[in-house]
Amino acid sequence: MSASGAVTAPAQPLVPVLAVVGVGLIGGSFAAALRDRGAVGRVLGVGRQAATLAQARELGLIDEIVSLPEAAQQADLIFLAMPVGATETILSQLKPFLRPDTIVTDAGSTKANVVSVARAVLGDRIGQFIPGHPIAGAEKTGPLAAEAALYRGRTVVLTPLEENSSQAKAYLTRVWECCGARVMAMDAQVHDTVLASVSHVPHFLSSVFMWQVATAQDSDLRMALAGSGFRDFTRISAGSPEVWRDIFLANRSAVLSELQEVKAALSRAEMALQDADGESLQDFLEHAALARRFWGSRSGLT
Amino acid sequence: MSASGAVTAPAQPLVPVLAVVGVGLIGGSFAAALRDRGAVGRVLGVGRQAATLAQARELGLIDEIVSLPEAAQQADLIFLAMPVGATETILSQLKPFLRPDTIVTDAGSTKANVVSVARAVLGDRIGQFIPGHPIAGAEKTGPLAAEAALYRGRTVVLTPLEENSSQAKAYLTRVWECCGARVMAMDAQVHDTVLASVSHVPHFLSSVFMWQVATAQDSDLRMALAGSGFRDFTRISAGSPEVWRDIFLANRSAVLSELQEVKAALSRAEMALQDADGESLQDFLEHAALARRFWGSRSGLT
Repeated sequence: MSASGAVTAPAQPLVPVLAVVGVGLIGGSFAAALRDRGAVGRVLGVGRQAATLAQARELGLIDEIVSLPEAAQQADLIFLAMPVGATETILSQLKPFLRPDTIVTDAGSTKANVVSVARAVLGDRIGQFIPGHPIAGAEKTGPLAAEAALYRGRTVVLTPLEENSSQAKAYLTRVWECCGARVMAMDAQVHDTVLASVSHVPHFLSSVFMWQVATAQDSDLRMALAGSGFRDFTRISAGSPEVWRDIFLANRSAVLSELQEVKAALSRAEMALQDADGESLQDFLEHAALARRFWGSRSGLT
Repeated sequence: MSASGAVTAPAQPLVPVLAVVGVGLIGGSFAAALRDRGAVGRVLGVGRQAATLAQARELGLIDEIVSLPEAAQQADLIFLAMPVGATETILSQLKPFLRPDTIVTDAGSTKANVVSVARAVLGDRIGQFIPGHPIAGAEKTGPLAAEAALYRGRTVVLTPLEENSSQAKAYLTRVWECCGARVMAMDAQVHDTVLASVSHVPHFLSSVFMWQVATAQDSDLRMALAGSGFRDFTRISAGSPEVWRDIFLANRSAVLSELQEVKAALSRAEMALQDADGESLQDFLEHAALARRFWGSRSGLT
């Protein structure tokens, strides 16, 4: 028989107070995922645009709109999900008010530059900052696009610093796993090189190609005959010019170096075509097709 | 009062007897679309693989499996939907049995080479051949992928010959419109140049990029961090290596020449990145993004 009247104190949620800076797709989905799992107490939203913040509150993504100092004073976890270019400003405004036990993480697509900015700004508080990058779609933007399932089955890269405590790293890993993500830890420079290859270079090439077609004299006719292959290949080129300009600038040397590799591969393939060398063409197409099919069957991305 | 007993003869369908050579996605969907609209009487299927033909018959895409001579003798319209490389062989086998009123058309992705092969093989029967190219997806293949709606809202390019009669051209246009497609007529060389730009070059670049990532030393790590942008950009590289090898070889000079244009654009964009010229980068990204968004809103391709 259980002792009647014994009340169990409600368990503290994993994140008692979460602050999200930038309540768009990435920030809003993070809040939604944690709320969905009952893993968050209160969600504070910070942002530049009042209308976006109001919308996020109406959608129930955040509970309260606060300033950066208020977020620093109240939050247990601060998630930076605004464009990478604003990292320095945001951290500078958070630092004077940051509680010593608060963990700050981010969602920036480049990591080495974020780390160096964070070190410069946070100084001896750098141990509280754990850099991160959730690899999750960003075709749609804004709080309306946010969804609790965005990170389910997706990879989140953390590029922890020497100064981060094991406890803090374990905690942030648990938070991301709670969103359904799998967490990989790696060096910031390795992250940037790999992302240059599989994310930044495709975007660069897609945009260059789209630009070339759009500026051709007969672009109307070209566009009229463009089909589903064109659609897929150019989809990413529709992304935010500002966001991608910042990513390219932030990861400039890795992007330029990967572009060299792609151009070398392109020269080889062009040579085969020039020589009407069907065997070499077939070899390279087959290698690419098999690799893509294998990736497709394992990536979980449909 | 209508005269009772007066029986209206059932209207002849638009295509009394259709023969489809190659009953995969393209050929099967053509038959399915016409059947769906009640526009076809009997459908004959020709192909190399008995299993595929049997499957097409089970699926109701074709009524009967026949030889090329039988198809030539019986069909009012013959639709060639096998790989372009087989055009010469197929036309040679059709020609001796071809009825003088039968129209032959094709679905090949390149047109100038098909026209020259057809002229050489068909000789004084060339007026019966109207070259065509439906711009419709080919990610899935085989009769199972065939669907009556494939051509709805899609563009079909015809590159008619001087020798084609107005009547024959009007008839084929009506047939395609009956499948829900819009028909555009143009010169074969113009078609090939435009398709080099919006179809063949993207496939070439996507495959080159996929090959480069797959052959990198750390390809496993790269693949593990590849997200939805990578997925879209590389999707076409999974296509049939044989089919695409043939397309590249068939449209070699136009593809090589378009690649030069893309490389020139790439050099300009690379230069801007090299110089950390944010304004130029933003300009080019914006131009590309606006053009892609505009295309997306008009193409009807989701």
